[in-house]
Parts: sequence; C-alpha cells; structure tokens
Amino acid sequence: FVVVVHLFCLSSGKAIYRNDVSQSAFQEIKEEIASYGDVAKAIINHAVYGKAQNRSYERLALLVYAVGPRLSGSKNLEKAIQIMYQNLREDGLENVHLEPVKIPHWERGEESAVMLEPRIQKMAILGLGSSIGTPPEGITAEVLVVTSFDELQRRAPEARGKIVVYNQPYVNYSSTVLYRVRGAVEAARLGAVASLIRSVTPFSIYSPHTGIQEYQDGVPKIPTACITVEDAEMMSGMASYGARIIIQLKMGAKSYPDADSFNTVAEIIGSKYPEQVVLVSGHLDSWDVGQGAMDDGGGAFISWEALSLIKDLGLRPKRTLRLVLWTGEEQGGVGAFQYYQLHKANISNYSLVMESDSGTFLPSGLQFTGSDKARAIMEEVMRLLQPINITQVFRNGEGTDINYWIQDGVPGASLLDDLYKYFSFHHSHGDTMTVMDPKEMNVAAALWAVVSYVVADMEEMLPRS
Amino acid sequence: FVVVVHLFCLSSGKAIYRNDVSQSAFQEIKEEIASYGDVAKAIINHAVYGKAQNRSYERLALLVYAVGPRLSGSKNLEKAIQIMYQNLREDGLENVHLEPVKIPHWERGEESAVMLEPRIQKMAILGLGSSIGTPPEGITAEVLVVTSFDELQRRAPEARGKIVVYNQPYVNYSSTVLYRVRGAVEAARLGAVASLIRSVTPFSIYSPHTGIQEYQDGVPKIPTACITVEDAEMMSGMASYGARIIIQLKMGAKSYPDADSFNTVAEIIGSKYPEQVVLVSGHLDSWDVGQGAMDDGGGAFISWEALSLIKDLGLRPKRTLRLVLWTGEEQGGVGAFQYYQLHKANISNYSLVMESDSGTFLPSGLQFTGSDKARAIMEEVMRLLQPINITQVFRNGEGTDINYWIQDGVPGASLLDDLYKYFSFHHSHGDTMTVMDPKEMNVAAALWAVVSYVVADMEEMLPRS
Ligand SMILES: [Zn+2]
Ligand SMILES: [Zn+2]
Repeated sequence: FVVVVHLFCLSSGKAIYRNDVSQSAFQEIKEEIASYGDVAKAIINHAVYGKAQNRSYERLALLVYAVGPRLSGSKNLEKAIQIMYQNLREDGLENVHLEPVKIPHWERGEESAVMLEPRIQKMAILGLGSSIGTPPEGITAEVLVVTSFDELQRRAPEARGKIVVYNQPYVNYSSTVLYRVRGAVEAARLGAVASLIRSVTPFSIYSPHTGIQEYQDGVPKIPTACITVEDAEMMSGMASYGARIIIQLKMGAKSYPDADSFNTVAEIIGSKYPEQVVLVSGHLDSWDVGQGAMDDGGGAFISWEALSLIKDLGLRPKRTLRLVLWTGEEQGGVGAFQYYQLHKANISNYSLVMESDSGTFLPSGLQFTGSDKARAIMEEVMRLLQPINITQVFRNGEGTDINYWIQDGVPGASLLDDLYKYFSFHHSHGDTMTVMDPKEMNVAAALWAVVSYVVADMEEMLPRS
Repeated sequence: FVVVVHLFCLSSGKAIYRNDVSQSAFQEIKEEIASYGDVAKAIINHAVYGKAQNRSYERLALLVYAVGPRLSGSKNLEKAIQIMYQNLREDGLENVHLEPVKIPHWERGEESAVMLEPRIQKMAILGLGSSIGTPPEGITAEVLVVTSFDELQRRAPEARGKIVVYNQPYVNYSSTVLYRVRGAVEAARLGAVASLIRSVTPFSIYSPHTGIQEYQDGVPKIPTACITVEDAEMMSGMASYGARIIIQLKMGAKSYPDADSFNTVAEIIGSKYPEQVVLVSGHLDSWDVGQGAMDDGGGAFISWEALSLIKDLGLRPKRTLRLVLWTGEEQGGVGAFQYYQLHKANISNYSLVMESDSGTFLPSGLQFTGSDKARAIMEEVMRLLQPINITQVFRNGEGTDINYWIQDGVPGASLLDDLYKYFSFHHSHGDTMTVMDPKEMNVAAALWAVVSYVVADMEEMLPRS
C-alpha cells in the first residue's frame, strides 16, 4: 500500500507525509529501513575503510590552505565559492549552480588594546562583527568590570564614560553568547564608551574569540571586542583589589556596502520523486581568523562527502538529495534566509533538512527535531549505523541555516559531538586543520550519508506534527 | 641508638647519613615517621580546610597582578624580588636575605612574521630567549619545512638561504624541546638564514610558546622563534602540496650586559641541627609572556606556603628548613648555579633538596631521586598524606635548580601532577592565574609542608647511596 500512496503523490505532483502511522504500518517502515542494512554497510565501508577514507579531510585541507578564512563580504569567500562550484562540477554532481545573495561586508582592520594602568600590558582582542571602530587615536578610558548584566544594572551610575568589561562566567554557548551579542548595547545605554567582553568559551590558552554582535536603534553605537578569559579574570581580580584600570583601545573596524555572494548548490536528482528534497548542508563562510576549518569547513565538506559517497556507490535515491553550502551564516544566516524566501513555496516537498555546524569530530549521535513518529523513524534509521556504533538520536536538531524550515514544521537533523572541544576553538585563531581529524571526519561523513540517503530513498516522506 | 649517633654528628659538626639501615632500624624509622601522624593532620587541616586555605593562591595573585611576568634581567623581576623580600620578612620567617647573582638580560622587542606566499597570513610567533634579532627590514626568504633533524640532514642542500621551519611532532617535553634549543644551530650549520620552530606543547589554541635556545661557537647566529602548532602543520601541508612558501620575519630581539639579581632566601632555623638543611624551592623569574603564574609562581608560592604553615602551627624542626626562590632559572638555572657554588662546601649537611617547577595542580604524588633506602623512608613519609589520598612516590625527582645537588648525591624531590596541562600553558601567554586553582594549590602546599617538615625533623638525615 505504500507504493499506492506514493504513486498517488507523484501523480498529484504534491507530497503527502503520513501522520497516521499505525502500529502495523510502523512495522512495515521498520522492515523497509532494515532492508537498507547492506547499503549502509557499503557506505560505511567506503567512507571509513575504503577508497574514500580521509577524502573529506583532504579536500578541506586543499581549500583552506589555498584560501584561508572566508569572512562574509571578503574576496576569500568568493574565491572559495568559485572553487567549490568547480569542485562540485568536477565531482560529477548534478544541477550544480550558484544562487545569488547580498551579504554584509565588515572588516576589522588593525586593532589593539593596551592596559595602561595599573601596569602596562598588551591585550589580545578580536573586534566583534558589525562593530564600529574607534577614532584613529583610540579610546582611552577607565574600566568598569562586571560579571553580569545584573551587576551592570546595579552599578549603572558608574558606567558613564567608562569601558565596560564583562567577565561573565561561561555557562553554555547559547546563554553566555548574549554577552557578546548585546554587551555593547547594554553598556552604551548607560553611557559607556566601549565594551570588552570575555570570550565565550569553556577553555582558553589566552585565545580571543570573535563573533557577531548587534546594535539597536536608538542606542549609541560603541566599539566592542572580545578579550581573553585570562584578561577578563585578571581585570576582575585587579578591580577587587581596588586597582584603577585604564585601557587604550584602538579598532579600525568598518562596515561597507553589502557584497555579492552565493549559496552553492549541487544535487543527486531523485529517481522517483525528484521534486522532493532531503537537504544536507554546512556553511562556507567563516570568521576572518584561523582557517574556518572547523566552523564550518568540516560541516560543509562532510555534506559534500555525503553526496560523493552515494554517487561513488552508484546509488540514486528516489528523492532529490540537495547539497547547499550556505553563505553569510556568521552574519545571522543571511544566505539561508535568502534560500528560504526563494524556496519556501516548495516547503511541503522537504522531507528533512540537515545541517552540520557544531563540529565534525567523532559524533555521539544525531540531533533531531520533529514529530514523535518521525523521531521513531529516525531511530530506526540510526540503527543502520550500528557498524560504527553511533546510533543515538538526541533532541534539538538545529542549525542557523535550517531553523527557518524547522520552525515551519520540516523535520531537522544535526550532528552532535564534543561541544566542549568545539567551543574551545570556535571563532578563534585556533579554528584550523590542526583540530580536525580525518578519521573522525570519515565517521561523521558516513553517518551523514547513510541518514540522508535512506531518508531520501524511503517510500514515504518523514511525517510532520 | 639513633640519638647517640646524632649527638655524635652534632658534636663533630659534620652530618652523617646512615647507609646501614638494618631491618630492625627501619622498623624504628617507620615508627618514628608514623608518630608524625597528628602533625601531618594539623598541617593538612590548616592548609586545606583551615585559616590558611587559598592563601598561597591569593598571595600569588597579588604579586602577579601587581608585577606581571618576570623575565630575567627585567625591572619586573627585580621588583618581584623586592616585594618577596618584604613579604617573607613580614611573614615572620628567619634569616630572610638576598644572595646576589648576575643574570642574562635579553629582550624580545617588537616581532612579527607574515607569510607572503602562497597567501598572506600574519603568524603568531614568540622569539626564543638569547636569539639575535633580524635587520630592521626583516628577513624575507623561502621556507624549508622539515619534521625532524634527520629530515633536515637528508635535505641539507635545500637549506641554504632558507628559513627552516621545524614541524616536529610532540613526543614529550624533554626530547622535543631539543628542537627549540638546537633548531637554530642545526639550521645555521647548513646556511639557513632563520629558523621557526613548532611550539613544544601537546595542545594548542594557536598559542606560541617561548623558551631558551642556545647558539654554538663557530656556528653563525641566526634569528629564531617559535610558531604555533597550527602554522607549522599548515606549512607542512602546503609544502606537501608543492606550494612555495615565503615568510617575512622581523625580530627586535637583543641581548644586553648581565643584570644584577638575587636568589631570595628565608628560613625556619633548626632547633637541634641548625647547620643541616632541607631546601624547598621554586623560581621567581619567568618568561615575559602571560603572568608567570604557573611557571613558576605556583612552585615558588607553595614553597613559601610550606614554611608559613609550619610557622603558623608553632612547629620548629630539628634541621633548618630553607626556602629559596631562585632567579634566572629560565636562562638555564643561573641563580641555582650561583647558589650551588656558594654553598656546596656544606653539601654533606643537605638532607633533601625539593623543587616544585612542573605545576601546582592536584598532585599525583612525589617524584624522588635517591638511594633505595631513602626511597623507602620517603614512602613512609608520604603515608602521612593519606588524609588527602596522595601517597605515591615516583622516580625522577628533579628540577633545573636542584639538579646540581642531586647529581652530587643529595636526595631530591619534586611534585608530579598533570604534565599534559602543564605543557599546554608552559611559556605561553596562557600562563596566568586562570590556569591556577586555589584548592589544588592548598593540597600541593600541604604535601610540600608535610614532606619538608618531617624530613627536616626526623632524627636522621636521609641516607645517600
Ligand atoms: Zn558555524
Ligand atoms: Zn619553571
């Protein structure tokens, strides 16, 4: 009966996803998924032990060594996109094309911070994306150190004319990052002249971490940068001993008119329901420090690798497998929003959206967002990864670039791995090939390929809520 | 009989250490050591749970926040020595004095490295202690990347006129550090114009690590610096893809005439054998990056803390407990050599020399070098640390500053802890209070105090080989 339903779907030209998965129907689906056991093993063997092993790592190394980091609006990013367009064509993928997007163009320029009092010390900083610069002579001001927004509010009268230093503890990324995103606005409201934020990371070897920040209409724009955990803690300690701290901050940061860029797309076109889509993705842009190897070179390249593995094995799923390499993710998912606007009319044809953007180390499993019925199916799919012993399905499948779809009810999946490690290197000079491991990437790519292929090839789309 | 022997020792004015510890005599020693159980508990309680808790950390923070790093020959180091002299007097320790030492004076000045080909990238570097600088316009040259001295020899004809980049893997500190120490000389022999060495560390977040290097008579001096693990691996990768790499290196490094400095000494004078000594120590100088909090602020401050704890409890051992805060350690144990020259005539009176210079994290135990009989005694002493569950005695007690004595047969002890962590931060900008933990320092100080007190108070000196 599965076939009948699907012939109907195809003939109507409109996808139907089933909500009424009865127990017996689910038994059928379990059997259907179990029948992919040999295919899954073939993918795993090819990726982890066979000819394809280390390929995603080596492809990534070639790109990042040639291009380096790929900031939104930079020549590096556009060079990388052109190289990837060529790579995907040469790999024999289908419907390789670029979808234009206007993206922000910000440059940090030269920047420095020197503590002048109580003793002279150069400090490592990284200006935050979208920050304004300082005057050429810099801003020299006394420091107010706080450990929270609450403390800033309590000490509001002290902030005027000061450089506010946030020494907030690291709790987790999604909550602590608010200091980076809103720190300048909250300080500026109280008359501060600049803000320096402790880098959002669980671990540091004097490593500053950059990232986007947001100004707010009606609040003065002040320059803002991240400092290291070490310097934030040192100034906190000095202040607690009663020291008067003075910093000279110089930032050449500047925003330019939006730049032309592209989402990069390639496909394996579905054999039976070509208009239906399983989307696998990562973002090609990065910050302008390190090599953008981990965030998100790894995610982009295991996504490409997923299609390469499937193609190598002569497989063609019933649905279209679509690879998207997003642009402008770090500036707030700009490329992904453009893609969503362009393609959302077809949303009923999206079975699953996948993004890897939290590291491609050894995965602990798959994060998934979707209905209970869809989750039950994903759990069956993940059983196919038994040969590499990674079968867990966690909550909270997500990704800046796929969240638009997930919010509209499309099932979404992401990779879960060692987030402590990920955020130790995230947006820092340390985001390089050194943190990447070819064998871990092999495993991540195998998982990514099996999940995307099986979901794309099953008779039914994943059920929604 | 023990008492008789010792009266003899005292009356002759010359210490005798017993080599003929018979089984029954050892039983006596065991009982003697076990009788220190209450004293050990009192020290541990005071250090870990009592009024002294966190004191060594807080004292250290005060110093390093006020002074910063303390390079040999710098004003910072001399300021720190003067502060410590005051601190030790105010703490009520005895015979507080400074012993003059001439130490090297080298400064790194401004330094930078930029990769010009195959693409432009600024690189983090730290010039190595004693390196010469470059001409003001820098040295611009092609790179030869090697992964070992062997590879350098095999490719000797390629080195002339090049900047040799060493991308040696990290095996362990003592073997891998040879690349930092001898890298310039080995490259210069073959006509290289500079050498850049992968930082000697098991872990990196784009963090360069400095340290001493040595020129050799008859071999041209070339500028030399450490680069990050990440850049060493990147250039290795680029070279393997056939890329031609060009770097512009600028270093303002310069050596100045030797500077005046001091070893800082304080004591608790022995009640019965005041001329006999148990020496506890750490070094006060550091590299010029970070805060010198870990290397060796921690070791210096738990050594001070050991004497403070003993004094607080109204204890006075039979032998003199001597605290030495060495100067010029990072330049090759210059202060320690001076001390050895000055005091070696009294070597027969040294029962035990102790140095903490490998971190003051949670100790795994004590490293000890000495005769089997002395080791058996140290194992009994370490049983007294049962309340904090750190009782192990390992081999290889050592320390740059105490090795002169150990080589001459004096028993030596050092702290063993997490060396992976230690060398991750060692000689880098990340050597700050952030890596220190007050509770770990409490435990390390308690161990240090119990061992030094008991060995100083036992009737017999430790037997030598
Ligand atoms: Zn990302
Ligand atoms: Zn040291």
